[in-house]
Amino acid sequence: MDFLVKENILINKIIEQALLEDIGTGDITSESIVPSDLKAKGIIKTSEEGVVAGLNITSLVFKKLDSEIIFQEKIKDGTKVARSKVLAEITGSARTILKGERVGLNFLQRMSGIATITSKFCQEVEDFPVRIVDTRKTTPGLRILEKYAVSMGGGHNHRFGLYDAVLIKDNHITVAGGIRPAVDSVRKQISHTVKIEVEVENLSQLQDALRVKADIIMLDNMDLDTMEEAVKIAKGKALIEASGGITLGKVRKIAQTGVDLISIGSLTHSVKALDINMEII
Amino acid sequence: MDFLVKENILINKIIEQALLEDIGTGDITSESIVPSDLKAKGIIKTSEEGVVAGLNITSLVFKKLDSEIIFQEKIKDGTKVARSKVLAEITGSARTILKGERVGLNFLQRMSGIATITSKFCQEVEDFPVRIVDTRKTTPGLRILEKYAVSMGGGHNHRFGLYDAVLIKDNHITVAGGIRPAVDSVRKQISHTVKIEVEVENLSQLQDALRVKADIIMLDNMDLDTMEEAVKIAKGKALIEASGGITLGKVRKIAQTGVDLISIGSLTHSVKALDINMEII
Amino acid sequence: MDFLVKENILINKIIEQALLEDIGTGDITSESIVPSDLKAKGIIKTSEEGVVAGLNITSLVFKKLDSEIIFQEKIKDGTKVARSKVLAEITGSARTILKGERVGLNFLQRMSGIATITSKFCQEVEDFPVRIVDTRKTTPGLRILEKYAVSMGGGHNHRFGLYDAVLIKDNHITVAGGIRPAVDSVRKQISHTVKIEVEVENLSQLQDALRVKADIIMLDNMDLDTMEEAVKIAKGKALIEASGGITLGKVRKIAQTGVDLISIGSLTHSVKALDINMEII
Amino acid sequence: MDFLVKENILINKIIEQALLEDIGTGDITSESIVPSDLKAKGIIKTSEEGVVAGLNITSLVFKKLDSEIIFQEKIKDGTKVARSKVLAEITGSARTILKGERVGLNFLQRMSGIATITSKFCQEVEDFPVRIVDTRKTTPGLRILEKYAVSMGGGHNHRFGLYDAVLIKDNHITVAGGIRPAVDSVRKQISHTVKIEVEVENLSQLQDALRVKADIIMLDNMDLDTMEEAVKIAKGKALIEASGGITLGKVRKIAQTGVDLISIGSLTHSVKALDINMEII
Amino acid sequence: MDFLVKENILINKIIEQALLEDIGTGDITSESIVPSDLKAKGIIKTSEEGVVAGLNITSLVFKKLDSEIIFQEKIKDGTKVARSKVLAEITGSARTILKGERVGLNFLQRMSGIATITSKFCQEVEDFPVRIVDTRKTTPGLRILEKYAVSMGGGHNHRFGLYDAVLIKDNHITVAGGIRPAVDSVRKQISHTVKIEVEVENLSQLQDALRVKADIIMLDNMDLDTMEEAVKIAKGKALIEASGGITLGKVRKIAQTGVDLISIGSLTHSVKALDINMEII
Amino acid sequence: MDFLVKENILINKIIEQALLEDIGTGDITSESIVPSDLKAKGIIKTSEEGVVAGLNITSLVFKKLDSEIIFQEKIKDGTKVARSKVLAEITGSARTILKGERVGLNFLQRMSGIATITSKFCQEVEDFPVRIVDTRKTTPGLRILEKYAVSMGGGHNHRFGLYDAVLIKDNHITVAGGIRPAVDSVRKQISHTVKIEVEVENLSQLQDALRVKADIIMLDNMDLDTMEEAVKIAKGKALIEASGGITLGKVRKIAQTGVDLISIGSLTHSVKALDINMEII
Repeated sequence: MDFLVKENILINKIIEQALLEDIGTGDITSESIVPSDLKAKGIIKTSEEGVVAGLNITSLVFKKLDSEIIFQEKIKDGTKVARSKVLAEITGSARTILKGERVGLNFLQRMSGIATITSKFCQEVEDFPVRIVDTRKTTPGLRILEKYAVSMGGGHNHRFGLYDAVLIKDNHITVAGGIRPAVDSVRKQISHTVKIEVEVENLSQLQDALRVKADIIMLDNMDLDTMEEAVKIAKGKALIEASGGITLGKVRKIAQTGVDLISIGSLTHSVKALDINMEII
Repeated sequence: MDFLVKENILINKIIEQALLEDIGTGDITSESIVPSDLKAKGIIKTSEEGVVAGLNITSLVFKKLDSEIIFQEKIKDGTKVARSKVLAEITGSARTILKGERVGLNFLQRMSGIATITSKFCQEVEDFPVRIVDTRKTTPGLRILEKYAVSMGGGHNHRFGLYDAVLIKDNHITVAGGIRPAVDSVRKQISHTVKIEVEVENLSQLQDALRVKADIIMLDNMDLDTMEEAVKIAKGKALIEASGGITLGKVRKIAQTGVDLISIGSLTHSVKALDINMEII
Repeated sequence: MDFLVKENILINKIIEQALLEDIGTGDITSESIVPSDLKAKGIIKTSEEGVVAGLNITSLVFKKLDSEIIFQEKIKDGTKVARSKVLAEITGSARTILKGERVGLNFLQRMSGIATITSKFCQEVEDFPVRIVDTRKTTPGLRILEKYAVSMGGGHNHRFGLYDAVLIKDNHITVAGGIRPAVDSVRKQISHTVKIEVEVENLSQLQDALRVKADIIMLDNMDLDTMEEAVKIAKGKALIEASGGITLGKVRKIAQTGVDLISIGSLTHSVKALDINMEII
Repeated sequence: MDFLVKENILINKIIEQALLEDIGTGDITSESIVPSDLKAKGIIKTSEEGVVAGLNITSLVFKKLDSEIIFQEKIKDGTKVARSKVLAEITGSARTILKGERVGLNFLQRMSGIATITSKFCQEVEDFPVRIVDTRKTTPGLRILEKYAVSMGGGHNHRFGLYDAVLIKDNHITVAGGIRPAVDSVRKQISHTVKIEVEVENLSQLQDALRVKADIIMLDNMDLDTMEEAVKIAKGKALIEASGGITLGKVRKIAQTGVDLISIGSLTHSVKALDINMEII
Repeated sequence: MDFLVKENILINKIIEQALLEDIGTGDITSESIVPSDLKAKGIIKTSEEGVVAGLNITSLVFKKLDSEIIFQEKIKDGTKVARSKVLAEITGSARTILKGERVGLNFLQRMSGIATITSKFCQEVEDFPVRIVDTRKTTPGLRILEKYAVSMGGGHNHRFGLYDAVLIKDNHITVAGGIRPAVDSVRKQISHTVKIEVEVENLSQLQDALRVKADIIMLDNMDLDTMEEAVKIAKGKALIEASGGITLGKVRKIAQTGVDLISIGSLTHSVKALDINMEII
Repeated sequence: MDFLVKENILINKIIEQALLEDIGTGDITSESIVPSDLKAKGIIKTSEEGVVAGLNITSLVFKKLDSEIIFQEKIKDGTKVARSKVLAEITGSARTILKGERVGLNFLQRMSGIATITSKFCQEVEDFPVRIVDTRKTTPGLRILEKYAVSMGGGHNHRFGLYDAVLIKDNHITVAGGIRPAVDSVRKQISHTVKIEVEVENLSQLQDALRVKADIIMLDNMDLDTMEEAVKIAKGKALIEASGGITLGKVRKIAQTGVDLISIGSLTHSVKALDINMEII
């Protein structure tokens, strides 16, 4: 993915919003104390082990404030690093470096937090042909960045929104009067380029979903035994996705059932920021 | 605070962005399956105990999609509720309810997560005259909502950004050549309405900060003994704020030192979403 | 599709832009001549036969100018109507009706033009199990409205943009060094929810695309004989889409080959506006 | 006109909107297949004869995506070119060239289509002292670009919107109770810098318009004989504009009547895109 | 002019910007003190004599904050009022009234200041057939409101910007090599709907401007005698506009020369706000 | 303050708005007359004595139109200059220089007008330890620039908006039932970083304000004797601000009372633009 290049319009707006929010009419501390022509160097460093994501975003934060800042990435996004690892060096106006520090770190810490937890889930299941995928349970306004962070942690992305894939849930099934009428109705209207996923709660619904040739079937909160049974029935006929309350402790067992995908909301809805700091030298 | 009323311009933009991000060109599932004139009722319910914040935001999410939605809040923001508590009922177009569900919950779960953890910190120190306060370590773009959530959990807000209060940190002190020149320089330029906070790392710096009449002094990562000493010296002469790596386990001990304020980045940078769901009935 | 409801954020922005462009600092003619409290009624009528699309948009145009305008649609979008058919009645401020007329009609005429030509293509092939689909050759800024107009004319939509489906073209194949490496590379990275379409120019490429299990295969500018052959080979193994220079004269022959989809750029890139007028009475 | 330079704010917004619409969260095909450091060269070429307009816009499309793209225009806007003529060469990141191709061509094909048809009308009347002019029947959101394309085809522009010139139509006349009161009312209020045009349907209205010294008189849907009579009466006293259902077949006869201006809605409301392609080499 | 109705998009943006600027993340005083359900009534009153303009804008300011506010205008824009005159009553939420007060008055005082000074100039020359007109020397971002205020004071508007009328100044004449080539060049390119004004500094230039049939001629900083001579020469052949350093003391003498228009930059570039206050009762 | 650097997001938006407002679809005069490759040099010069502010803004105006313009500031903002002083030289495209002239000067003249009058007030009181401060009576949308101009004139800024300091006025006191409950209520809710100012009308209210330890006390429209009394009582216990109808004639007497601050609305609400011109050479 290169959606993080300088000219990405969506991301530029996100960063602009964040800077406006923090700086507003000015950084009254730095502007009073730090001479406008003083140069400085900032070092961005981890304070704990983890997988890094978002250095490109942090770079943009500083460059949006001041196009003459030089931001040198010392590692690549997606790298697992130890404690006290230097991630980047920033050279330029001391004022700019101080002004952008918090916003830059707020992005980097959150995104690296996501990459780190994703990577832990991926490691648990690395010897299985299964994908760890994210959900739409992302922070409002930051989905593109959080899905990128998931991919940097080794995970994969589920749909980006309500617009780019069909997911028929229990409420849709109830309204339509069953899985078949729901799928028929969708198939008649949507683009031929869109896949159809159906959420099922039991094996009977699974059979229904297979009969109407759902592309993907989500096993919602199934116990391990039923899940295993479901995989036996459906494997190769549709992609099978396990979903619901999946933790680091449980994920390996779920992978063992043979599902193709494991989707995990907590990758993005309950993130522990990775501890990263900036020092001026 | 009433900054959450319908006409708040900042918040309207945040919600609009979030809806655009999730819905884009349309909810292709619901629009294909759910008749446009079908009415439904949604129930928003907790799946775990916690303090609720953001019901007004969730209400706005649905009303922005469809002004005829009726959103009845069953409790007030700031209330601590048990598991399985009904928080709100939504009545109106079934399509709208399904389209807005995820965005509405993404706000509500995150904000309630913040209120819940804040409330736990506040409870730990409730018999001390101390304030639990937030920081600028918020999610980019959502600061106004996250600071509101902190207040709903019983906490208080620190400054909103670089523009509304002075905080002189170690880097500023180094550049200025000491606490006195830093404070002098700031005082000469900033508005008389703005308070000055100085971050100190030891008792000698604390004395410097008192000498120049800092309004607030932040004790940065001090051990408990030094902190106690600092309080003895500075109490009543400036507001004293403890800061740095404060956990639920440590917070009570810190309060016992007599500090006026305890600021905690993890209130907003490492949030566990509160488990809240919506059912259509 | 209900993406055209009042609260659709994308569409509201398109209409706002169009009104700003036309009205700017004011309608100096009507504001000088028409008393601000004069009421009037406008009748929107066809001057030629066609399929109507965009009445909802036209309604929004007037309501954005003045929330008290009453806009009564006399037929539904997607209806084929004769010459001189009344499509809508507008009641309210005479000034508003005159101010909004041109912008309202500019949307309606263009969208109805698209629906009308689409409907002609659909009619040509109505006894075949084939879909007429649009392309990305839409007017910059109006894609959501133009794709809606295609659907109102009986057509279906292809992907909405570069973000919601994969289409591997000749240039991608060249860069990747063949269809297999191109598809492999894509499949490894994209979401499991996204379909893969491959553009092929001959039967050998078609075989390659089938081998790597492309979901959709686009036959690019093939002659009818080769196309028929291609359908024999691929039917049921992938969706088959005919593309390239398709006219009303040729479309039926192409449908007879048995392809699943026929995509036509001219539905949106070369539109003849449907002749529709407004009279004040 | 130089309103098409890089820094034009209106045009930058139009292009930004178009790129967002097409690329959204990313070009999932190119980003998966094309290495980020691969360079390429694209050739933009006509597939049919016509007059070119919009190369500067196409150039901006690519540069907005990536400031390092080199876009060399091989001809100037306004040039008539044969089939297979190279219009421009694009050098730079292969990904960027593939990502921007469709949006760049969508602008260029539409604008060149407008320039081409305008040029045909102009050629028909080139030996008469008459201007071919456009109308407000433009594509919502693209008026500035479409009016520029008309001028590149040799046509001239009518007013840009409701704000920059007065055009009193039948409805205004009815409301005001005649041409005189309408013109009086307008003249009293508008700026002295604004011209007044009156639409007339017969010779008696023409006399009224002359009496009140209208600057421009529009002959609305008059037959050729009446038009000729009108020119005899009004020539030199006001500018005379013919309007209504003017086709390539009729335009020369209308010019022969001696009118000063011929305004044609179809220049912009019913455009056939000029066939232009891009090849990567 | 009705460009001030609620739905005017330009004006809505101006007001939104102004409210964001003043209220930002919240009115921390009123939100802490004033109960959210307290109702109040505010009276807007003059503290000095003047002509009022902008009550509609002030009304919008309050309604944008809270759609339930009732704003009753007690007089109409354009009325001359005495000291202590009640202009409007505002009823509704006490918080909203306090929050909107400053922004509402900032608009009203400035616009009324403009209407008042304009009205004084108009009064000086009321027995002459001359128009007092404004210039482009307006406050950046507020031109539409300031030109409206001029009209409420009895003045008229000059062009709205560089886009809606031609004004050939000395620099243009120098570049073109004389008035004739300048006018020829413009006339060939601009729309037939646009008038041409030429700025002249002496009688010889005046003759040149008449020869090329300029629609309007601006006499730039001429002394009264030359101005009188100029009027004798040009009256009836072009509109004649006096310009440059015109004060209340001089304006009547200038009108006596017989010019058609007197343009005055200070109407908008050096405004004394009219003293208007709000009381809560 | 360096909030005026190129990348300031708020200021960029203000300038963009101003350029759009003036140039819109194009400068039809300059674009018709001035060749696109003609270079020119413009000289910005004062026509009267004053203090300059806003050269950086004027520079941005030109650079936003055309990044290749060279704008050389010949003096620094905040300098007092004589008549006929060259402030800046602009080199580059003649068209750009002509297009940007009016907007550039509109900012510069207004901001310099503010700096000049502020400087006059400051000079009157220069031998007293008192600050001249501004208010929220600024032009809607331009507050950040106007407060900067005040500081360039030697003044200081009061709060930037309702969000960054508390000012308890008479209406708040009435609603709360006295100064004590008002201050208590505010103190409980606001951030510890925010100062509290109370407006008092007499000495009894002053005593109340001191009792509750207001940080700043505003003496509203007090006569000089009472003011002097007030200073005796409150000096050193709170900052004392004089406010209400302060003129150049009165300001020195007010300073003599010993107040700490004098706030003056007319610095920004009733500005006489400084006479500054541009010549092309």
